[in-house]
Amino acid sequence: MGDQLRPDWSGRLTRAWQQAAAANRAALIVSTPTNLLYLCGFAGSQGVLVLSANARWLMLDGRYDQATREAIAAGDVGPVEVRTVPSRFDQALADVCASLPAGEIAFEGDHVTVSTLKAWQTAIPAREFAGTSGLIEKLRIVKDAYELRAIRRACRLTSDVAGHLSSWVAEGRTERQVASDIDAALARAGCTSLAFPTIVASGPNSAHPHARPTDRRLTKGDLVVLDFGGVLDGYCGDLTRMAGVGQIEANARSLVDAVRSAQAAAIAAVRAGSLGSDVDAAARHVLTSKGWGDAFVHATGHGLGLDVHEAPRLGRDTASPVRLDAGMVCTIEPGAYVEGLGGARLEDDVLVTAEGCEVLTEAPIELLIV
Amino acid sequence: MGDQLRPDWSGRLTRAWQQAAAANRAALIVSTPTNLLYLCGFAGSQGVLVLSANARWLMLDGRYDQATREAIAAGDVGPVEVRTVPSRFDQALADVCASLPAGEIAFEGDHVTVSTLKAWQTAIPAREFAGTSGLIEKLRIVKDAYELRAIRRACRLTSDVAGHLSSWVAEGRTERQVASDIDAALARAGCTSLAFPTIVASGPNSAHPHARPTDRRLTKGDLVVLDFGGVLDGYCGDLTRMAGVGQIEANARSLVDAVRSAQAAAIAAVRAGSLGSDVDAAARHVLTSKGWGDAFVHATGHGLGLDVHEAPRLGRDTASPVRLDAGMVCTIEPGAYVEGLGGARLEDDVLVTAEGCEVLTEAPIELLIV
Repeated sequence: MGDQLRPDWSGRLTRAWQQAAAANRAALIVSTPTNLLYLCGFAGSQGVLVLSANARWLMLDGRYDQATREAIAAGDVGPVEVRTVPSRFDQALADVCASLPAGEIAFEGDHVTVSTLKAWQTAIPAREFAGTSGLIEKLRIVKDAYELRAIRRACRLTSDVAGHLSSWVAEGRTERQVASDIDAALARAGCTSLAFPTIVASGPNSAHPHARPTDRRLTKGDLVVLDFGGVLDGYCGDLTRMAGVGQIEANARSLVDAVRSAQAAAIAAVRAGSLGSDVDAAARHVLTSKGWGDAFVHATGHGLGLDVHEAPRLGRDTASPVRLDAGMVCTIEPGAYVEGLGGARLEDDVLVTAEGCEVLTEAPIELLIV
Repeated sequence: MGDQLRPDWSGRLTRAWQQAAAANRAALIVSTPTNLLYLCGFAGSQGVLVLSANARWLMLDGRYDQATREAIAAGDVGPVEVRTVPSRFDQALADVCASLPAGEIAFEGDHVTVSTLKAWQTAIPAREFAGTSGLIEKLRIVKDAYELRAIRRACRLTSDVAGHLSSWVAEGRTERQVASDIDAALARAGCTSLAFPTIVASGPNSAHPHARPTDRRLTKGDLVVLDFGGVLDGYCGDLTRMAGVGQIEANARSLVDAVRSAQAAAIAAVRAGSLGSDVDAAARHVLTSKGWGDAFVHATGHGLGLDVHEAPRLGRDTASPVRLDAGMVCTIEPGAYVEGLGGARLEDDVLVTAEGCEVLTEAPIELLIV
């Protein structure tokens, strides 16, 4: 796969429309911000893309239309026709729908709210709307060469920052101070934003998988969970490492070691053709065998791309198993959380290949003793 | 109004339920994160609150349930009963609904997606669901003493950072570097997060109201829009100031002066009983009279609280005008954007009072020449 300077907007737009056309829809409305970013490179917070046999209309309000026209001319946004929305999107959509062929109009049921659908139905009573689920997300699950380059770079920048954790993690500093240093380092490294709010969870807080940084000071004996990621060209990195402050009790060290073994087992289970639930089971088996099975309260991983959480989910759910395919990118992040002892999580990002996987994040994984 | 150490969770929960009871609903499902934060202090990304005559059930998955039980015991989360969701929310909701009184179940139509509603209807075929719009948001529009204290503090921290802009804005620095310095200063000041991604838009980029920081270096003659805000105790500050790099051309200075006059006129128009559209008209009149009317492509302001954009909207819309009331908090942020010249926006946060308003942000508003 060669490097591409720009995404293949036209191919992506065509494939999105083909999905709707195959279901006999007259048009497809896309309004999820990351799906708009994927299909045509539009990075604003609000826009509505209407695709049809002869239409690629991007409806935008006054905040975005001029900049987007310029971006299209420069090739930074894909080949779509900007339609300015003077006031309300539902009214503008009614105007646009009048020039679409007859038939049902597909929309993103996982994103459009009940109120928005009602507004569309009221403004455009002559039309039927049909909710779809995961239609564009399905196209995004296997990454193309452009995307892999961006994800590799986001993972490299995130890993570089992880390599400097020892500069910031120290006894007496607060979780917030450490998080702020990580954030500043991600920005200095060139990341355009954070993939999610940085987690620094120390001591008792480490036992909560989704803790937020507090003013608690790092204290001797603490386990510290450090979970962060940078964004580059829209694509996310996501990495978790563990630190210990001074002397860590033997049981806490066993917890970290067990999570590390679980992570290694999960990474070894990744390959094209495996199920997401197989990878999860590999991690869960290790933690269960060491007596921490009940402490592993989340899934082993999730897809990574324009969203920091996207398909595929690598969880216990065996009812609707996801089969891994070459070109998918996922996090592998088992964890165990024990009240009174603390919590541990280790996370890397991997690219699924035919034979196994390539680990895209590269940072020392040993418990960092500070 | 005395200071409260904690929000009146119980009063808020009662008032929310009363709204649904008044519409003869059997129960109300709340799932918008900021509405959950408002009603009971739960700050996670996913939860479902079920309110009924005898129920205050907060449904949570394994990531949140233990920490939330502890927070309830400590009084940091309001008086709700945690129900752990073992796997799927729709299945858990079906179990919970079985013990609710007969009748329609209200939900947040502005937040719940078409797919989620469909999943609920499939899992709970015996029940009817009724979409509501702005039901909790209506309760949030006038701030109580606890909220005002938090907003005042968020505005003070944001203003303090604005007072140091001259340390970071300099010729030759990139927009991203300046934004990163602002972000770090907000964190050092004690903000728990950013209210939104910081905007630093220089030269041609300033002509785009929603520009994002790039690697462009600040250059002599640039106008620079600096728009940022910090969060404290969940509440947002939001402030915009203008800088100029070296000698600014006369026309650019006129643009900034016009925006400053427009902002002053809008602030002077704020009082309990005014319409949001009156405030917008005051700003728009000034910019139009100076020939920049077409360059003002957004609304004059928006409500500010747990969300950085909430009710009321101070825009041109006179079809459904919002009447201002004492205790509302809004931004006042007219702007003008001219291709080839640049853009200007000035923003402060105000508390609506019976006689007028109190400006909560306090930072030098003069064009900062660097």
